[in-house]
Amino acid sequence: MTDVRSHQPVLGVLSGERPAVPPIWMMRQAGRYLPEYREVRAKAGGFLNLCFTPELAAEVTLQPIRRFGFDAAILFSDILVVPHALGRTVRFEAGEGPRLDPLDRVEDIADLPREADASVFAPIYETLRLVRRELKPSVTLLGFCGAPWTVATYMIAGKGTSDQAPARLLAYREPKAFATLVDVLVEACIDYLSAQLEAGADAVQIFDTWAGVLPPHEFARWSIEPTQRIVAGVRARSPGAKIIGFPRGAGALLPDYIERTGVDAVGMDWTAEPRLIRERVQSRVAVQGNLDPMALIAGGDALDRAVDEVLTNYGRGRLIFNLGHGIQPEMPIAHVERMLQRVRDHRA
Amino acid sequence: MTDVRSHQPVLGVLSGERPAVPPIWMMRQAGRYLPEYREVRAKAGGFLNLCFTPELAAEVTLQPIRRFGFDAAILFSDILVVPHALGRTVRFEAGEGPRLDPLDRVEDIADLPREADASVFAPIYETLRLVRRELKPSVTLLGFCGAPWTVATYMIAGKGTSDQAPARLLAYREPKAFATLVDVLVEACIDYLSAQLEAGADAVQIFDTWAGVLPPHEFARWSIEPTQRIVAGVRARSPGAKIIGFPRGAGALLPDYIERTGVDAVGMDWTAEPRLIRERVQSRVAVQGNLDPMALIAGGDALDRAVDEVLTNYGRGRLIFNLGHGIQPEMPIAHVERMLQRVRDHRA
Repeated sequence: MTDVRSHQPVLGVLSGERPAVPPIWMMRQAGRYLPEYREVRAKAGGFLNLCFTPELAAEVTLQPIRRFGFDAAILFSDILVVPHALGRTVRFEAGEGPRLDPLDRVEDIADLPREADASVFAPIYETLRLVRRELKPSVTLLGFCGAPWTVATYMIAGKGTSDQAPARLLAYREPKAFATLVDVLVEACIDYLSAQLEAGADAVQIFDTWAGVLPPHEFARWSIEPTQRIVAGVRARSPGAKIIGFPRGAGALLPDYIERTGVDAVGMDWTAEPRLIRERVQSRVAVQGNLDPMALIAGGDALDRAVDEVLTNYGRGRLIFNLGHGIQPEMPIAHVERMLQRVRDHRA
Repeated sequence: MTDVRSHQPVLGVLSGERPAVPPIWMMRQAGRYLPEYREVRAKAGGFLNLCFTPELAAEVTLQPIRRFGFDAAILFSDILVVPHALGRTVRFEAGEGPRLDPLDRVEDIADLPREADASVFAPIYETLRLVRRELKPSVTLLGFCGAPWTVATYMIAGKGTSDQAPARLLAYREPKAFATLVDVLVEACIDYLSAQLEAGADAVQIFDTWAGVLPPHEFARWSIEPTQRIVAGVRARSPGAKIIGFPRGAGALLPDYIERTGVDAVGMDWTAEPRLIRERVQSRVAVQGNLDPMALIAGGDALDRAVDEVLTNYGRGRLIFNLGHGIQPEMPIAHVERMLQRVRDHRA
């Protein structure tokens, strides 16, 4: 970690500050909508090669900061590097999303190694060191991992599905085996995030992209509880570590999530209900989000109104401006610039 | 409408009763998990043929009532018969979901007929008359339609997509054209539901399957407001008509939805947060749902616990027991029987 925390607006909000202009970054801000990214991607070979080549991963991590001056850079990587380090085959095929060998038999879960192969992560830590060296001190460097539930859904189904039914079914049918898988992932996440913080990340985010498909009881068991263990485990090694949770789609379950996990901030998708969030979430932690990416693609008046809505709903409290979901490849760069200008012209 | 309302448990709950055992039916209860359905489906030819052949549609509507003794039968049909009656091409291809000719140009929306072709719906009304004649008076016959937002998402994209991005984008870019489409659908839904009630439906349900992808402002504009107009329009023609709304995924926006639409009951998907629902929804209207269909597929202890959770959460108020989403083709019939027995053995 750098020693300049007090000068980083993102860390400031995570620590309790309410600046007049919210700091801003975008989920998946390093990506195909940028021509300079597409250029690096083309010469990197496969997607995992890009993640595991520190010079290239550092370069694409820095590109959106150079172009837009965002307040945070997020490590260029993928949540599926953890199953990869657990010996599972992970492939990224163009236009197809990730593919893994499905892990749907109890015996195969029992045979998983108890620890991830640390050497797999070594280039990722090198990327963080390279990026932190290049970044202005005021820009926060974020590390991240996928939450155990979300990573497990991909490991079990072998891919993304419309509501991750295979993992939900396995969790109902074989709760002990499922808990074993989650336990392995909790430990891997603690090691991985702790090492990211040691390598230069100023804060970390835990992406629980598929939290929203879980009923309340299962949400408590498979999203909240493992996240709580990760937060406690990381803070045991890095006291005071700042952690953002993003249980996408959690809706009215967000207050439970923040109370029980102990995160410093929570990501909101674009469907969040403002009164509930202000009264029961933003009153306790910082919030991050939640522009509808479709409004950013649409641009024009629709974009201006959507930006203003986020600022009106959350701008008087602790807010890190962001999208409600990752940016898409077809995003016009001019719309990103328009959004940035409008947020920066805002005064709470 | 039949004159035996007081003896129908479902209408009783919709009217304010709290029976010790909640009435029960299942979304998509007439479907491929039943061998007797597959038999009729095989001889019907295409899916739309089945919807538009009154004897066959009536037969499959009645099958789950004969087998399980559910408290409600729901018209066998599809939400896309409305675009079909507006002259749009609708195809159902095996294993593919519905396909329509996409309606994504402003000019094409302007050219839509202002009224649906009523003759298209005639066989559907005949189905309702046939079913009502066969059903025991205590069993409620439900008609239904898709909510304008949800139907519009399929009309625009031409199919289901992971978060109905094409319709969200069009609504941002071309709000006037989108409002025109919604207006046409509102009027078509009022006519269609009113005629269903005249033909024998005891109550109707409005399915807003894709409501959950909308941010709060758009949810108010494209889900709540059109539904409110349909509810008011139907009640103007059928005073006291009982109407169930199902804005799937609405989460913390459900209290707004019930207050402003005036529905008598609201469907809950399996992710609903119980305290919010009890305090701000079930205190005002009946609720319907919300067993996780994956628990029903899993069976055994997981199913028993999930059934008990629904009953514990909502069983002391006005509850129509149902799933949180439609039943899947792979559902074991024995699990449905186990669920039914457990609900019926329950005493609030």
